[in-house]
Amino acid sequence: MTDLNAVLDTATKDFDNSLERLFRLVRIPSISTDPAHAEDCAKAAQAIVDDLRALGFEAEARKTPGRPMVVAHYTPKGAARNMPHFLFYGHYDVQPADPLNLWKTAPFEPTVRTDKAGIARMYGRGTADDKGQLMTFVEAARAWITTTGSLPIKATFLIEGEEESGSPSLVPFLKANRKELSCDAAFVCDTNMWDAKTPAITTRLRGLVHEEITITGPSIDLHSGMYGGPAMNPIRVLSKVIAALHDKNGKVTIPGFYDGVADLPKATKKQWQSLKFSDAKFLKEVGLKEPAGEKGKSVLEQIWARPTAEVNGIWGGYTGVGTKTVLPSEAHAKLTFRLVGRQDPEKVLKAFQAFVKGLIPRDCKVTFSGRGGGSPATEIPEDNPVIAKSAKALKDEFRRDAVLMGSGGSIPICRFFKDILGMDAILVGFGLNDDAIHSPNEKYNLESYRRGIRSWVRIMGEFGA
Amino acid sequence: MTDLNAVLDTATKDFDNSLERLFRLVRIPSISTDPAHAEDCAKAAQAIVDDLRALGFEAEARKTPGRPMVVAHYTPKGAARNMPHFLFYGHYDVQPADPLNLWKTAPFEPTVRTDKAGIARMYGRGTADDKGQLMTFVEAARAWITTTGSLPIKATFLIEGEEESGSPSLVPFLKANRKELSCDAAFVCDTNMWDAKTPAITTRLRGLVHEEITITGPSIDLHSGMYGGPAMNPIRVLSKVIAALHDKNGKVTIPGFYDGVADLPKATKKQWQSLKFSDAKFLKEVGLKEPAGEKGKSVLEQIWARPTAEVNGIWGGYTGVGTKTVLPSEAHAKLTFRLVGRQDPEKVLKAFQAFVKGLIPRDCKVTFSGRGGGSPATEIPEDNPVIAKSAKALKDEFRRDAVLMGSGGSIPICRFFKDILGMDAILVGFGLNDDAIHSPNEKYNLESYRRGIRSWVRIMGEFGA
Repeated sequence: MTDLNAVLDTATKDFDNSLERLFRLVRIPSISTDPAHAEDCAKAAQAIVDDLRALGFEAEARKTPGRPMVVAHYTPKGAARNMPHFLFYGHYDVQPADPLNLWKTAPFEPTVRTDKAGIARMYGRGTADDKGQLMTFVEAARAWITTTGSLPIKATFLIEGEEESGSPSLVPFLKANRKELSCDAAFVCDTNMWDAKTPAITTRLRGLVHEEITITGPSIDLHSGMYGGPAMNPIRVLSKVIAALHDKNGKVTIPGFYDGVADLPKATKKQWQSLKFSDAKFLKEVGLKEPAGEKGKSVLEQIWARPTAEVNGIWGGYTGVGTKTVLPSEAHAKLTFRLVGRQDPEKVLKAFQAFVKGLIPRDCKVTFSGRGGGSPATEIPEDNPVIAKSAKALKDEFRRDAVLMGSGGSIPICRFFKDILGMDAILVGFGLNDDAIHSPNEKYNLESYRRGIRSWVRIMGEFGA
Repeated sequence: MTDLNAVLDTATKDFDNSLERLFRLVRIPSISTDPAHAEDCAKAAQAIVDDLRALGFEAEARKTPGRPMVVAHYTPKGAARNMPHFLFYGHYDVQPADPLNLWKTAPFEPTVRTDKAGIARMYGRGTADDKGQLMTFVEAARAWITTTGSLPIKATFLIEGEEESGSPSLVPFLKANRKELSCDAAFVCDTNMWDAKTPAITTRLRGLVHEEITITGPSIDLHSGMYGGPAMNPIRVLSKVIAALHDKNGKVTIPGFYDGVADLPKATKKQWQSLKFSDAKFLKEVGLKEPAGEKGKSVLEQIWARPTAEVNGIWGGYTGVGTKTVLPSEAHAKLTFRLVGRQDPEKVLKAFQAFVKGLIPRDCKVTFSGRGGGSPATEIPEDNPVIAKSAKALKDEFRRDAVLMGSGGSIPICRFFKDILGMDAILVGFGLNDDAIHSPNEKYNLESYRRGIRSWVRIMGEFGA
């Protein structure tokens, strides 16, 4: 039996214990956004530290202005100086659990339920996001160490406790510990598989710019009988601005908006087509029929490889029950822009502001929240050899090619790792689209956890001597 | 001394008592919208009934499903069958007084204050709207009766108690008492003068149509990272609809919207120009610089003689603090249309709905509140001889021509008098734009009250034998 097979065997045999160790962590309500749970966060961090120390890691819960940061190192005895060294990133903090009344079982009392088709799922806040996922690292390391006495690579674990509240301490921490945390690459386990049977590596993440605008017309709310006609209505102006953002083909009209957006390489396009993704099914699930983005682009391309301008909220005037003949002084909108390729967040924001100003009539003024800002898109070069080796390991486990996929969302940590620590982030995760993260009845399939652990065993092995 | 001069003399000499009688009425907090004040409303109605009975009217407080309706008739002894007969309409109910903390003196303890320029004003809820105004009728009648023993005309007083809560009992009451209440014309005292020195008769009132629309895109709120691009955003669609309502010249674009809107007659245009109304001053008071309605039309024309489409409220998606990357399922707007001339409210509503439907993409649907509806504009024919005689009486009192003016708002009672009782409503009022009706520190100038009483003495006299 090779080392790898022995380690996989251990992982499989020890799975019930792996599950119980995860449940112990899930039972700690480490909600980072709620100060009342600060102690629970510290408790969760310490539980991970204790566990990793027992495995032979040099582990510490480091203080930050917010929740503690778990940093743990493992250097195999007699490791060569050039032995591959990876950082493994996850987060032990979780979302708040409310509304509590919608949970079928208590959020911090993890429970396994098996459906009629025989699929077993564990339910509880954090089972998927991200305690279940981060524990796939820990359990893979445990399997290696208990079976062979060591890891086959050098490893640094970085497990933060503020991911669900915007990671305020992360950037300063990375900057302050640049040398200690710089590795060959970072593995991040906080994403999904392509589907329950097909593994995936996420290589594209859209960037994000957000802005809030207020358009002011008259200095006070007016009576629409007395002023309707001569007084400029700011809702009308705001609507013109929003209506002007897209042309009839769904393209964003802001001058310069597409600077840095490249056409999809033919090979990538072909690969995505081969996924047999059903646009119709994806849209039907949310009551829609046809892609609303740029004409001629598939849903996957629209989400993974095209930028957007979206209005997330709009308000102005009277919004209560019945009629009020008010002509309001102000109208507001919140917008976000998803970025791809080399779009520059700062330039996009400025271009948007200039675009809006150009549409404001003399009798209105526009103010921007001043909290606008954002992060650029991330594209992990698909020729990074870590991707190829990880994909091979995933294929060995799942007997299916790993999909190199995109994500319409944004994971800022990838940029931070690249910009501050100079390494690519390789996103391998075992979540599924129906995990209900951030919602009541969050779950993680037992199979996600089992194969997640085994996948990391294989990936670690892939880089071993 | 002629009868008229003797009566005017009485009115002037008795003014302090007139003021005290008005104050007695103001002290009754007859707020119609608040059931806790139902008894106060009944008390106010009875006070007016008692006062009119003492003058020789046949007066009653008639029951309605809501607040009582005061109906009082006066027929001079030996009156000819064709003696002019007018209805005088006012309302004894008042707006709620809150926010109480903004009142300088208690709202139901009327107080007179004189400013440095020597202008005396009475403060209190209802001093202007409408107790002060309706008492100008009563005091004019008193002056006639106490001086000459009779009125020079037949008079019916209709004083309602639900004007500030939408007059729900009025239409059924008019219908049920059609014969009793039909006169040669109705005088309504609930409007303003042109300015403190210039009397006015309001001859144009805009109609009103209101509607609320909801545009639905995806069946649930979506994450703008996961769906931004392919999923249709209903805020975008709503904005297109609102942006399409006006062309670049401020004209409403709904097909058929202007059916029934006539150009302003040259004579009227000339008359309005002669008013020397300052568009700039009017707009500057509310922080604006240029008329936003149809290009080439003055402010007065835009308010008095042109229809509008206004958005009174808009909302959708996330409107709280900070950012939420939601792509909402629904977006909403409340709209009102002010109508002029012979625009048909029902047709305007239908045309608007068809216009909206034509702009809704396949993946959205629109629903209308079903509460849409409204009333047409009112134009009192300026050749009605009652207007000419009233204008003459006002000129005799004020030594200035009465302005025949419009109002951008709507006073549904005018339509009801015309449609149910077959008579025109002649709107003569003595309020001023700064009376703060519906607001804290409502006031009525003593001069408004004094000259109001004297004006009605003259108008009644104008129609006497």
